[in-house]
Amino acid sequence: MTATQDTITALLSGPDQSGLVAKVSGWIFDRDGNIIHADQHRDMEAEVFFQRIEWTPAPDGLDPVSEIAAFRDYAASLNMNVECKLSSERSKVAVFVSKYDHCFHELFLGQRSGELNCEIVCVISNHEDLAEVTKSYGVPFVHVPVSKANKPQAEQKQLELLREYDVDLLVMARYMQILSDEFLCGFGKPVINIHHSFLPAFAGGRPYHQAHNRGVKLIGATAHYATPVLDDGPIIQQDVDRVSHRHTVKDLVVRGRMLERHVLAQAVRWHLENRVLVYGRKTVVFD
Amino acid sequence: MTATQDTITALLSGPDQSGLVAKVSGWIFDRDGNIIHADQHRDMEAEVFFQRIEWTPAPDGLDPVSEIAAFRDYAASLNMNVECKLSSERSKVAVFVSKYDHCFHELFLGQRSGELNCEIVCVISNHEDLAEVTKSYGVPFVHVPVSKANKPQAEQKQLELLREYDVDLLVMARYMQILSDEFLCGFGKPVINIHHSFLPAFAGGRPYHQAHNRGVKLIGATAHYATPVLDDGPIIQQDVDRVSHRHTVKDLVVRGRMLERHVLAQAVRWHLENRVLVYGRKTVVFD
Amino acid sequence: MTATQDTITALLSGPDQSGLVAKVSGWIFDRDGNIIHADQHRDMEAEVFFQRIEWTPAPDGLDPVSEIAAFRDYAASLNMNVECKLSSERSKVAVFVSKYDHCFHELFLGQRSGELNCEIVCVISNHEDLAEVTKSYGVPFVHVPVSKANKPQAEQKQLELLREYDVDLLVMARYMQILSDEFLCGFGKPVINIHHSFLPAFAGGRPYHQAHNRGVKLIGATAHYATPVLDDGPIIQQDVDRVSHRHTVKDLVVRGRMLERHVLAQAVRWHLENRVLVYGRKTVVFD
Amino acid sequence: MTATQDTITALLSGPDQSGLVAKVSGWIFDRDGNIIHADQHRDMEAEVFFQRIEWTPAPDGLDPVSEIAAFRDYAASLNMNVECKLSSERSKVAVFVSKYDHCFHELFLGQRSGELNCEIVCVISNHEDLAEVTKSYGVPFVHVPVSKANKPQAEQKQLELLREYDVDLLVMARYMQILSDEFLCGFGKPVINIHHSFLPAFAGGRPYHQAHNRGVKLIGATAHYATPVLDDGPIIQQDVDRVSHRHTVKDLVVRGRMLERHVLAQAVRWHLENRVLVYGRKTVVFD
Repeated sequence: MTATQDTITALLSGPDQSGLVAKVSGWIFDRDGNIIHADQHRDMEAEVFFQRIEWTPAPDGLDPVSEIAAFRDYAASLNMNVECKLSSERSKVAVFVSKYDHCFHELFLGQRSGELNCEIVCVISNHEDLAEVTKSYGVPFVHVPVSKANKPQAEQKQLELLREYDVDLLVMARYMQILSDEFLCGFGKPVINIHHSFLPAFAGGRPYHQAHNRGVKLIGATAHYATPVLDDGPIIQQDVDRVSHRHTVKDLVVRGRMLERHVLAQAVRWHLENRVLVYGRKTVVFD
Repeated sequence: MTATQDTITALLSGPDQSGLVAKVSGWIFDRDGNIIHADQHRDMEAEVFFQRIEWTPAPDGLDPVSEIAAFRDYAASLNMNVECKLSSERSKVAVFVSKYDHCFHELFLGQRSGELNCEIVCVISNHEDLAEVTKSYGVPFVHVPVSKANKPQAEQKQLELLREYDVDLLVMARYMQILSDEFLCGFGKPVINIHHSFLPAFAGGRPYHQAHNRGVKLIGATAHYATPVLDDGPIIQQDVDRVSHRHTVKDLVVRGRMLERHVLAQAVRWHLENRVLVYGRKTVVFD
Repeated sequence: MTATQDTITALLSGPDQSGLVAKVSGWIFDRDGNIIHADQHRDMEAEVFFQRIEWTPAPDGLDPVSEIAAFRDYAASLNMNVECKLSSERSKVAVFVSKYDHCFHELFLGQRSGELNCEIVCVISNHEDLAEVTKSYGVPFVHVPVSKANKPQAEQKQLELLREYDVDLLVMARYMQILSDEFLCGFGKPVINIHHSFLPAFAGGRPYHQAHNRGVKLIGATAHYATPVLDDGPIIQQDVDRVSHRHTVKDLVVRGRMLERHVLAQAVRWHLENRVLVYGRKTVVFD
Repeated sequence: MTATQDTITALLSGPDQSGLVAKVSGWIFDRDGNIIHADQHRDMEAEVFFQRIEWTPAPDGLDPVSEIAAFRDYAASLNMNVECKLSSERSKVAVFVSKYDHCFHELFLGQRSGELNCEIVCVISNHEDLAEVTKSYGVPFVHVPVSKANKPQAEQKQLELLREYDVDLLVMARYMQILSDEFLCGFGKPVINIHHSFLPAFAGGRPYHQAHNRGVKLIGATAHYATPVLDDGPIIQQDVDRVSHRHTVKDLVVRGRMLERHVLAQAVRWHLENRVLVYGRKTVVFD
């Protein structure tokens, strides 16, 4: 009974072709599904088609999991990639942190208030500072120290933990270590990072110092998928806040916290709602 | 040859029913049309369906005007209201002004740069101040003085002019007179007004004075369709700008000009691109 | 030694008169104080002068408390009101809450991260929902149920608690009760409230419902000092976020939480940093 | 009589020292001047002091020009640099343009509406497109073609024109040529440029193409003083606007026009109001 109230969200992408909107909506309609939302985009230059479509399958039809399987087959027959998600499905999220706790708390508060439809299954840190507060949220905390010498072993340990907790999404909540290519490939699932600048400006270390030195009038934050190239992954969300000559580097750090929290939480929310399609070095966000 | 590159944009609305997305896109696909954009919205409470769909009709099919007629018939068979527009069609716009010229210039510059796909066919004013500059834009200017005593006659004169110039859209670019119900009914076409506050705050006269007295920290501007109730029509676009105790009423007036220009131009652009559906006291804007 | 690193912040206001800037800075200079910041404002119409001035008193001069007393006397001789605060002084804050916890957590996180230079001395609620989490922050929680029948007694109890905890500032973090005139007078200290609309639009109950009905394109939040007239007190800070026809009332509620948190925390921070002067129904915020 | 209503605005900067606020305000007070605004800033690291102070000199004192000379002497005695301006003084502005006219019109409209307190004395362009419309504004237009071969001669010609028109400020309103070091040194007065990105991101050519390729979620514009290093001068003002995957490069170009106009006009206004102090590679803007 509750299962039949579930909606299915599909993210489709692939080579543009005539009649895709009609075909996909026709398939759902023919099976007595009810389309709730449908949004599509065409990249005219690259001739790629993108669609996010959300529907309630027929109450007396297949169970949702089988319906998803059938839709996947249909999408394949159209030569389209597809990611499907049931509304009742809660992704399992791991959080990587160091010492800064503002993004960390934002994720927990968002999860508890229902804005982030997920389960936070573990927190992994290279420091012990946030052990207590993580436990007060009722979530396991694992301390994995990272040094130049032990980095490969530490990443191996992290990968094992991510597998053990069956993690769907890794969020770097101001985690102050760079993840290696081996780690990213080994994990093989999405990783969202928050960088405290308006990328591509001020990539790399100490972006608030860089911003202060350059005398910019706005500071920014960027949430992006992590890729092997530092601060270069597909951007999901960005925002800025106005600053002036009066702000010291320390002021920028404090002022930037709200931005970082807001931008990271928004990006994670969109990801969890199956709204983000990666596409080369860019994203399509159906918000 | 050029006609076949035209796209058709349709704005549909009506009682929600199963399969609308599939049916409409199927109709276009069956006639070898190519959907460029499609966006839809459902008001779950009111059970109303809204759609904006843009497509290129088949090059070897009907001419676009006949295709639009066929689509209208199809929409009627689905019990949907529809507004169609060809991309090559340029709406005829009349501008009502008084003495302030910032919104007036914005419209002309937007029209000339191609952002506003329209033809400005006449400027009508209750003052003579902008006669010269209107003529320098190559557009006829008509002075229709308005007083308490002559208002009905003045509005009659205005209506005649709007009919004579075959106007599709009237834009009140800080026109400092209230249009009567008779005028609005008599014209029978859309009227866009810019109000210099964040409605519903500070409706009526002297909104910057009201804002200054209340000590708000943001000032706003609102573009809306004019209805018989002053400053109460469906809102198309709003924006705000930050102010502080340092700003005098005069500062708010100056600072607000950029807001008013931006918000009005945006609303007119959306209207001209057939993106706005009025719906009760609200709008659906497919941007 | 540490005391000499303290700075004094003074907020002055009073009838405008010639030479005030020179006199006040001269007084500090003559006593070997070092002015760090000075900001002033003149209301030309009302002929009122406002100043915020921050300085380090001479290391070998009076202790800061005596220096403040001396400055108060000097300000009185100029016929100016003055509020002084030492940078080492941490205000005692009480938080009133009901069931919503987003503003509540924001205040605690802000306090812990150092953005809000205060001590949260107690949380008082008409519900028991937040008892546990308050205690996990190490702060006393007092449940004071409020009904139509017991309101005077409940407010009496609240006033006793505020006195007992020697509270300097009361923050209503989405507290869903109206405070009576008697309560506000009895407390006699500042009360900051967060209202979930862009005041003066949508004062009173259910502002997100009102906003949804009106079809506005931006939602807002307003932090203001509470006065006997509901949602009418001097505004400290406001902000807005963009919404569209796609947002249901529930979406507005979720989207508004970030706004409410941000706006309330900012207002409380400015108040704690002695940056806000109330002035009739308005504020001067030296940010 | 009118001269006595003039105010003097001084921008001071120099090595920080004790008592500067008191000394400067004391000097003005002793001569019966009336301080209207005073704003100061200290760079704690560099130990530099900055002040903008605006006052009405005593009606029965020296004429304003002599008063300014006296103030200059006083500032020199304090070892401070100073720029003074009378409120009745209108700077002479030259505008460099190519073919894009949105920033060009913005400057003229701002000048005519009084937001930009200046006189536009000439328009110089490497193309002839804007000759007619410049003349319709009643301002001389000079066509100075620029090619790789003739650039030194063209710049020589431009410098002569700037001298002939006694220009105080040069504004590059989307002028599509790089000014040489020789030109900038030869002119020796401030040059404001608008760059159509959020610098330091996307410096150099075709920034909207760069932004589109990178998939940023915000586009920006930056007004800065031109220096020999391209797009590297001290930033006066920046702003951004939200974009999405739906925007083509052409959409970014259109959307960016409003940003460019707004940001450039704001920067020019601040400069004309003597609000901007250059300081290394940065600016202090007393807004």
